[in-house]
Amino acid sequence: MSTNVSDSATAAGVDGAIQADAVIVGAGPCGLFQIFELGLLGIRAHIIDSLKHPGGQCSELYPEKPIYDIPALPVCGAQELVDRLLQQAKPFNAQFHLGQEVTELQVLPDHTFLLRTSLDTRFHAKTVIIAGGLGSFQPRRLGCEGVEAFENTSIHYKVKNSAEFTGRHLLIFGGGDSALDWTLELAGKARSLTLIHRRPDFRAAPASVAKMHDLVNSGSMRYVEAIAQSLITDGGEFKGVRVKKSDGAIEELHAERALVFFGLHPKLGPIAEWGLGLDKRAILVDTEKFQTNIPGIFAVGDINTYPGKKKLILSGFHEAALAAFAVAAHLNPAKKIPLQYTTTSPIMQKRLGVAGEQ
Amino acid sequence: MSTNVSDSATAAGVDGAIQADAVIVGAGPCGLFQIFELGLLGIRAHIIDSLKHPGGQCSELYPEKPIYDIPALPVCGAQELVDRLLQQAKPFNAQFHLGQEVTELQVLPDHTFLLRTSLDTRFHAKTVIIAGGLGSFQPRRLGCEGVEAFENTSIHYKVKNSAEFTGRHLLIFGGGDSALDWTLELAGKARSLTLIHRRPDFRAAPASVAKMHDLVNSGSMRYVEAIAQSLITDGGEFKGVRVKKSDGAIEELHAERALVFFGLHPKLGPIAEWGLGLDKRAILVDTEKFQTNIPGIFAVGDINTYPGKKKLILSGFHEAALAAFAVAAHLNPAKKIPLQYTTTSPIMQKRLGVAGEQ
Repeated sequence: MSTNVSDSATAAGVDGAIQADAVIVGAGPCGLFQIFELGLLGIRAHIIDSLKHPGGQCSELYPEKPIYDIPALPVCGAQELVDRLLQQAKPFNAQFHLGQEVTELQVLPDHTFLLRTSLDTRFHAKTVIIAGGLGSFQPRRLGCEGVEAFENTSIHYKVKNSAEFTGRHLLIFGGGDSALDWTLELAGKARSLTLIHRRPDFRAAPASVAKMHDLVNSGSMRYVEAIAQSLITDGGEFKGVRVKKSDGAIEELHAERALVFFGLHPKLGPIAEWGLGLDKRAILVDTEKFQTNIPGIFAVGDINTYPGKKKLILSGFHEAALAAFAVAAHLNPAKKIPLQYTTTSPIMQKRLGVAGEQ
Repeated sequence: MSTNVSDSATAAGVDGAIQADAVIVGAGPCGLFQIFELGLLGIRAHIIDSLKHPGGQCSELYPEKPIYDIPALPVCGAQELVDRLLQQAKPFNAQFHLGQEVTELQVLPDHTFLLRTSLDTRFHAKTVIIAGGLGSFQPRRLGCEGVEAFENTSIHYKVKNSAEFTGRHLLIFGGGDSALDWTLELAGKARSLTLIHRRPDFRAAPASVAKMHDLVNSGSMRYVEAIAQSLITDGGEFKGVRVKKSDGAIEELHAERALVFFGLHPKLGPIAEWGLGLDKRAILVDTEKFQTNIPGIFAVGDINTYPGKKKLILSGFHEAALAAFAVAAHLNPAKKIPLQYTTTSPIMQKRLGVAGEQ
């Protein structure tokens, strides 16, 4: 397995990159707690997430669901957990780099790391802590054979430039806020617009759904309760989608463009290419430092594995604490890092901004 | 190292003992969270502590101190943490056995365990989880040479029977509530009473301190600001304590009995005799099951050690979670124990008593 050490990593690659002692990849609960644990040891972190907001799966997949097994929080909503962790991490002033995925990680000859994100932010990091959860969030694809060939040309999972859809025959798939918001936005601009959703219930705001029905009643757009079945193509060109309606009938919906908003789901993504030792889709770590096979790269939370691993948030918290000590030792091998308690240590309390409060 | 397997463990030893799937030794934060984690897996626990209340060091040593590093609790008083953990453990209805220390642990020929406490409560347990923190809380001794010879005869660390002190010349050492409460209680009953405390500040309730000064002013007792220096003995008999007063003068305080209330401090105690693999004063465990060298005996929290161990409460929580899975596997080796989430699992929610609340 290659470790991606590149002798051609030039000074130019590092030039202009953000210099960082520690870069955390993933701003879910473990990533947020990693900020806190590093902060207690005097290390300021940069943190990157593919989502536009911190919280990872908690915020993205089940924000309103209660969690019962966070120690000393008998019941805690998933979003509440994220808010609490953000508040706890606040004294340590981490720099957030959101809405961008880490696409490249290069090990430089001096065993530091060069990271690059999908927005071309670059970091020259002494240590990297991967808190990637189940992976980065990718759009759920339209479930039709051959869909890949048309993605980002005729079939889109997000709107980069709404002019792309103006004056076009357009299909929009989905029943959440993204689907409804873009339906309302583009209904007057597309040449024709059909919204397709698989069931009568919408996750979108009821007001948006009501507005959509108004547009249908006024003849500005169509709404079809159906699921996508196959693509309609002609000579390699996208011509629309064949759908199966709730009454079982098949209908051909002809269009030039399709927008698909089926939500996001996590995938390991580019992390799989960084030369890290993997077991299935998880990164192998030791249980002392939670370090990967590449010294200076650590992995905490659901993305790692070791004997006995359980994908529990509280295990990720423990892993983040031990990884922080290992990061401190990696940054400063000669220095002994004593364990100090937040309850009694003046240094910890100064870092927390609570010195003298007792 | 002997593992204390005793072939002479007769049925009589087990007869009348409380039958238990899991006995937790220690009701500090980790022991309390252990109840919760076992409960999620359908295992009801018995829990034993030498203190008369749950909470361990948190409640005993620093109940009002804030803790800042419990994940998602930016600040939490030590006693508040204990209260929160008790609330979280409540659905699982553990049986508490407080104010008694486990003095004996015997491995039976069938690899179950017989435990006996200082109150002679006996348990026949299939698994034991030691969550003993820094050990069981023992009274701090009077710091004079040869004090052991008079302990529990002339020198006492607690009052078992107050009649023992009635009509005696009595010294009481200490400045906390125990020292003051017993001073007020015994001042009219002892033949003479002198309270000795090392400094003008008392940890006891101010009202008690005021009452004590009233008794001094009315000539009912003496108060001396001093520290104990040596015992006064005569022919092997206790005759009093030589103290050094705050002005440097030495005074001989003659008495028949002394009561010493210097608080409690944790000691490993009888656990050291159970045949468990130790490293210094900590129990060696693996990081998969947090099992000791004796199968079926686990150790979590500050009392255990493994490579990378940090004595953090959050690490104890992680250890309790993984130990719970290992306990379940030990109790039922043939059954696969799936990881289920409290957020989504109907079985977990039923056990938690929150089924149908969503």
